Amino acid sequence: MSGQSGLTHIDASGEAHMVDVGDKAETTRIATAEGHVRMAPATLDLIRAGNAKKGDVIGTARLAGIMAAKQTSNLIPLCHPLMLTKVSVDIAEDADLPGLRVTATAKLTGKTGVEMEALTAVSVACLTIYDMAKATDKAMEIGSIRLLEKSGGKSGDFRHPEHGK
Amino acid sequence: MSGQSGLTHIDASGEAHMVDVGDKAETTRIATAEGHVRMAPATLDLIRAGNAKKGDVIGTARLAGIMAAKQTSNLIPLCHPLMLTKVSVDIAEDADLPGLRVTATAKLTGKTGVEMEALTAVSVACLTIYDMAKATDKAMEIGSIRLLEKSGGKSGDFRHPEHGK
Amino acid sequence: MSGQSGLTHIDASGEAHMVDVGDKAETTRIATAEGHVRMAPATLDLIRAGNAKKGDVIGTARLAGIMAAKQTSNLIPLCHPLMLTKVSVDIAEDADLPGLRVTATAKLTGKTGVEMEALTAVSVACLTIYDMAKATDKAMEIGSIRLLEKSGGKSGDFRHPEHGK
Amino acid sequence: MSGQSGLTHIDASGEAHMVDVGDKAETTRIATAEGHVRMAPATLDLIRAGNAKKGDVIGTARLAGIMAAKQTSNLIPLCHPLMLTKVSVDIAEDADLPGLRVTATAKLTGKTGVEMEALTAVSVACLTIYDMAKATDKAMEIGSIRLLEKSGGKSGDFRHPEHGK
Amino acid sequence: MSGQSGLTHIDASGEAHMVDVGDKAETTRIATAEGHVRMAPATLDLIRAGNAKKGDVIGTARLAGIMAAKQTSNLIPLCHPLMLTKVSVDIAEDADLPGLRVTATAKLTGKTGVEMEALTAVSVACLTIYDMAKATDKAMEIGSIRLLEKSGGKSGDFRHPEHGK
Amino acid sequence: MSGQSGLTHIDASGEAHMVDVGDKAETTRIATAEGHVRMAPATLDLIRAGNAKKGDVIGTARLAGIMAAKQTSNLIPLCHPLMLTKVSVDIAEDADLPGLRVTATAKLTGKTGVEMEALTAVSVACLTIYDMAKATDKAMEIGSIRLLEKSGGKSGDFRHPEHGK
Repeated sequence: MSGQSGLTHIDASGEAHMVDVGDKAETTRIATAEGHVRMAPATLDLIRAGNAKKGDVIGTARLAGIMAAKQTSNLIPLCHPLMLTKVSVDIAEDADLPGLRVTATAKLTGKTGVEMEALTAVSVACLTIYDMAKATDKAMEIGSIRLLEKSGGKSGDFRHPEHGK
Repeated sequence: MSGQSGLTHIDASGEAHMVDVGDKAETTRIATAEGHVRMAPATLDLIRAGNAKKGDVIGTARLAGIMAAKQTSNLIPLCHPLMLTKVSVDIAEDADLPGLRVTATAKLTGKTGVEMEALTAVSVACLTIYDMAKATDKAMEIGSIRLLEKSGGKSGDFRHPEHGK
Repeated sequence: MSGQSGLTHIDASGEAHMVDVGDKAETTRIATAEGHVRMAPATLDLIRAGNAKKGDVIGTARLAGIMAAKQTSNLIPLCHPLMLTKVSVDIAEDADLPGLRVTATAKLTGKTGVEMEALTAVSVACLTIYDMAKATDKAMEIGSIRLLEKSGGKSGDFRHPEHGK
Repeated sequence: MSGQSGLTHIDASGEAHMVDVGDKAETTRIATAEGHVRMAPATLDLIRAGNAKKGDVIGTARLAGIMAAKQTSNLIPLCHPLMLTKVSVDIAEDADLPGLRVTATAKLTGKTGVEMEALTAVSVACLTIYDMAKATDKAMEIGSIRLLEKSGGKSGDFRHPEHGK
Repeated sequence: MSGQSGLTHIDASGEAHMVDVGDKAETTRIATAEGHVRMAPATLDLIRAGNAKKGDVIGTARLAGIMAAKQTSNLIPLCHPLMLTKVSVDIAEDADLPGLRVTATAKLTGKTGVEMEALTAVSVACLTIYDMAKATDKAMEIGSIRLLEKSGGKSGDFRHPEHGK
Repeated sequence: MSGQSGLTHIDASGEAHMVDVGDKAETTRIATAEGHVRMAPATLDLIRAGNAKKGDVIGTARLAGIMAAKQTSNLIPLCHPLMLTKVSVDIAEDADLPGLRVTATAKLTGKTGVEMEALTAVSVACLTIYDMAKATDKAMEIGSIRLLEKSGGKSGDFRHPEHGK
């Protein structure tokens, strides 16, 4: 973690810039991220009940996450625009939290990784869950947003040290 | 937390919709949210060093959060468009995490609350910190994103039960 | 229908411009629009079956319509930006078409009407239905997109002459 | 039209997702769509007269359609982002409707088809025509929006059965 | 021009923030800006000739300017979102430049001025002129973009010292 | 500069359209543009002082320029969407203006040039400087926005005749 391998968005004179990826190879890149929304047990019951009937909280959050992945380079100042070939968002109940766990996978054949797209999809899906349930529970907490794994690209594969634990 | 006061974005027939706020009063509404990015100590050192010189990681994340607050209704499907009169984002070091703590405040005179704007500003500022430091530390974790307090509007004031603890 | 009451977006010298609504009164304005997607009976069966299980084609189209209403002033060059207080999109099966009927209502307290927001919601919901079913049926047709009724504003109430027929 | 060739945006468990196009071949893809706006004869006269002088209703609608094609993946939730190499929109008078006929062609060398881009261009051009003439004619109707033909891609060429009739 | 009346987007601790306009009065605010594109005489001839026939370079640039005014708060990080009640863009030939002069006026009843909306409209109209003529003349220069006058708001009226000279 | 090599965005019938670049070769394309903001000496002092402490006016303008480059095809009606591999924006003081000079470079491997991306980055960085300093100096002027040089593509390399003078 020397200065050489340091913060890539800061150039020699210390100013933020978009890294030049023009000479990077086009490879298949996949990234998976996760996060959760912790809530009161009664809030989870309410979502589950609504869900059983119409699936809307979870369905809405999943779509919001997919659409947000496509906005990543507009939201994160130094992200490169890219053409995702796939985004998926899964949302599952976790009674132990209690709450909902969100997982997102982004995929692309290109010159830049898609970690930020996967993380953005998770974040916006979580925000949407909060938005749709906040009338009953304003104390919900969004947490544990992290990159689970990625493959492809010069920096090689990555697997979060706590992945699967 | 009866069915009546339940999930406001789901209508009588259970379908997601944008709540009608036309008859709500225009009041001054303020919301403050927070979150953090936990990282390796060396990553924090690197950001701090860059910061001492140019302030760019933190400056970039702060601007990204402010700009994202203005995109909230484009990202969260059932959020109302609104005209923020103020957004501020503060980012502070926390050696105990270790990492950075992000706090955002949104303000408006209008018919709807600004909780989602404050939470979106925090989330995107955290994502930006991750983006700018991910070349050295992919295991960073974004967490504890929550509404600290809000005032204004029919549902009254709110203060997170763990706020200040 | 004299020159005076003519095309409001074209000024005295004939050039397109955004009409000045600064002196218009703030009133409650509501507009409802409709449209449909005509498809092969087997396509409708497929959507219905998917629907019975998960509701996704219709749920996705409904959300797409709501979100598109918020983008109206970015899509239609001379539309004023405005702050919708409500958007709803309903989608119902019509075995006689055969296909799906889309209805959208937009509401606002402001200086400009919301006809375009309702029509845009309908159009994008129809496009989304097409997108989600096009793998099985490329010959679907989107049609009968029209303003059913509007109220509020200086031009008074309107009800489509064929509304209800 | 078996289950296998069914609704591609709904995955095995029935949830909406963005189809993975990563393994599709890059081919030249072209799609042409059409639609119309039916209006009172006097409205068409008004547009024609304005047109003869400045061409603005038609010119504005044409540009709105071109610009909207570039927004397709932001409007249609499960559309892939892509890089159009060409969009054209043509608008012609049809005294028999009476009204205006809109045709749009989108082109790309890539992994996904451009049907939705052509259909979105047509839809937004029609909405813009409605917007610019609605002060004189609120009963206009947008209709017959359909894919005329497409070429390229694994699913092969398509020509609408009523194309040319 | 003391520290007190200094750079309003920088707060007490020197960090960029969005100024709180919540307590400002709602007044009618108007701003007019101008700019030009200087070009080779032959380029102006070409635009004029195309114009005489179809008006497209100027018509396209005018629409681009109007649409860009609506994007101002998305482009300028610390601008407040607002609801313009009017935008107009005028483009006139100036044989002495030689080139085209662009003037834009923005109007609003609200808490913040519309100087940036008028200046953004001018800038994007000029960029569009450049884009449409650059195949024949890459040496064109965009210049003299400035606020001509503004009225409304606490800071009072302004008239550029060189306005009319 | 014959009709043949004339305004590429106007087709045979004189209507604006997006040029078909489908058959152009993918080459590395680089474009550099510049511009400036002229201001009162005291305004420059104020920015410099703020800068010495926090660097925010210049830092904010630089980020705004980078982010705007990614919005180019949404702002300029007939620009192709493209995937920039690099954008950089530099801002330097020029005591002789007096004011700030902005330079931007955009890079891409693709079918279309990136002149407009570089020019858009410069324009929006200049607008942001104006926005952040306008409370003290409304008479600032944005000028001399031009393409300094470009390389790559069929039209060959270009160097502004006054570049370096």
